[in-house]
Amino acid sequence: MNSFEAWGSTLLPSIELLATLAFALSGIMEAARKRMDVVGVCVVGFLAAFGGGTLRDILLDQRPFFWVENEIVLWAVLGLCILSISFMRQRHFDLTEKTLQWPDTLGLGLFTASGVAQSLALGLSPTVAVLMGTITGIFGGVLRDIVCNEIPVSFKDHRPYALCSVAGGVVYIVLDALNSEPWFCMALCALVTVIIRTLAIWKNWVLPAWRKD
Amino acid sequence: MNSFEAWGSTLLPSIELLATLAFALSGIMEAARKRMDVVGVCVVGFLAAFGGGTLRDILLDQRPFFWVENEIVLWAVLGLCILSISFMRQRHFDLTEKTLQWPDTLGLGLFTASGVAQSLALGLSPTVAVLMGTITGIFGGVLRDIVCNEIPVSFKDHRPYALCSVAGGVVYIVLDALNSEPWFCMALCALVTVIIRTLAIWKNWVLPAWRKD
Amino acid sequence: MNSFEAWGSTLLPSIELLATLAFALSGIMEAARKRMDVVGVCVVGFLAAFGGGTLRDILLDQRPFFWVENEIVLWAVLGLCILSISFMRQRHFDLTEKTLQWPDTLGLGLFTASGVAQSLALGLSPTVAVLMGTITGIFGGVLRDIVCNEIPVSFKDHRPYALCSVAGGVVYIVLDALNSEPWFCMALCALVTVIIRTLAIWKNWVLPAWRKD
Repeated sequence: MNSFEAWGSTLLPSIELLATLAFALSGIMEAARKRMDVVGVCVVGFLAAFGGGTLRDILLDQRPFFWVENEIVLWAVLGLCILSISFMRQRHFDLTEKTLQWPDTLGLGLFTASGVAQSLALGLSPTVAVLMGTITGIFGGVLRDIVCNEIPVSFKDHRPYALCSVAGGVVYIVLDALNSEPWFCMALCALVTVIIRTLAIWKNWVLPAWRKD
Repeated sequence: MNSFEAWGSTLLPSIELLATLAFALSGIMEAARKRMDVVGVCVVGFLAAFGGGTLRDILLDQRPFFWVENEIVLWAVLGLCILSISFMRQRHFDLTEKTLQWPDTLGLGLFTASGVAQSLALGLSPTVAVLMGTITGIFGGVLRDIVCNEIPVSFKDHRPYALCSVAGGVVYIVLDALNSEPWFCMALCALVTVIIRTLAIWKNWVLPAWRKD
Repeated sequence: MNSFEAWGSTLLPSIELLATLAFALSGIMEAARKRMDVVGVCVVGFLAAFGGGTLRDILLDQRPFFWVENEIVLWAVLGLCILSISFMRQRHFDLTEKTLQWPDTLGLGLFTASGVAQSLALGLSPTVAVLMGTITGIFGGVLRDIVCNEIPVSFKDHRPYALCSVAGGVVYIVLDALNSEPWFCMALCALVTVIIRTLAIWKNWVLPAWRKD
């Protein structure tokens, strides 16, 4: 776990920054679609960005939070919020559900990887680590949707979303069991998650449906 | 508290498993009624099952969570989700609100007992212990309803629900003050909660209503 | 920080009690408007009252919660709930949104001050302290609105609300940097928050709006 500590202190924060910005964007967009005010857009952006990771840290009893340790992330998200709002006010921007999917997919992959990595580093079991990865990945979006007064899109989408995160987590666990380098586990975990989710959107995969009554 | 430790390590987990499965079922049913996808049904099942107990552990700053320590619970709930989904897909199953009440009532009683027991074991005051019991009992359902985009049924039902949990908690406190055995406190606490709730449903008890304007 | 400890142990609890009661009232009123039952009114009152402060304590990993340490607060809120319900049942009481704004404004100011004070006392950076103050201030209301199945009023109000809290937090930070007494920082922080919010309501200030499409 020593080599993990070493690279983790430089790579992990960068990955979390990227994932955080991607999720913030999805929150900003959904809040804008709901015609929330400037503050609402920022708060939903923050919640989508930090919700999953913060919930993970609360569940794992980890302090300080990554956004307390790396305050730059807070300013980065705030900057992104202000930029997005200015941009969206200057020209009409059609926020289709499709537009929302790309930052969301990237964030899902990156947060899954960081959640699994941190859980394993704390000595949790593979099952719990995969669960924590999925929670980290999807709960930013779940909190975003709850605050926007919607049933979370990941629960009624009928296309694989959380399952992609689970698949990515399993890839991480398998690679870790094969003694792969942590950066490789994380990269492949994120990649697999993103690829499966992209395929699901592109090929329009649907989960088995309920009986028509 | 020594005898508590002794039997608690065997009985407490079994009770929590039962309560957890009962609540999971209520979550699965509500998600199915909302026509969520397979993932949504599982997540709402998990949230209803683990929400109350996890919130209790977060508030009491207890780690590891019971579902981290006893990973079997995770698999049991996952199994229940898959079984329920298969069953509900195979034959039409009319999920009335009535069907939902039974697992919910059982879970309420069992979780109340476990919440009060754990709070007292940590040396919290009787008032806080009763509050924690009620939080443990009702917040799985509250989180379930929030995620399903409903006002929590326990807040607008106009029939005693949380109050049954409070009554059960008070019974626990009184028995504990009389130096009863912990298993007896828990059993009676759960029993009283379940009986009052059952009576409330059966006799159609209603809480005092608002003035008609 | 020694003088802080000294006065803090007497003043801080009183301020938190006031803020808590003010927020409880806003929760009670909103639940009554939603025609929730007696239990719902109490729970939403408790959630609005203790939600922000409890979330702050969870984020800062502070235990025991202020309502565990000062159990009297729990009884005070419960008493307020019962009083309000009796009062509202005895005579018709038109709960306009305007009525809701006053306790809400007071709670916002007081909780912001307590959140910033506690964060600084724990050695967190000014940025994080302001953020924590705002979270403490607005999340009681956010949880209240989520449970009532509404988009949080502070996100779509289009009038400054969270921003007032941010302004109050900045005042605290500046005064603290100038080595002002803690009680003075807190008082001015709360005062500035309340005044700006009151002005915003009175003068009908609006945040910059979205483009009309």
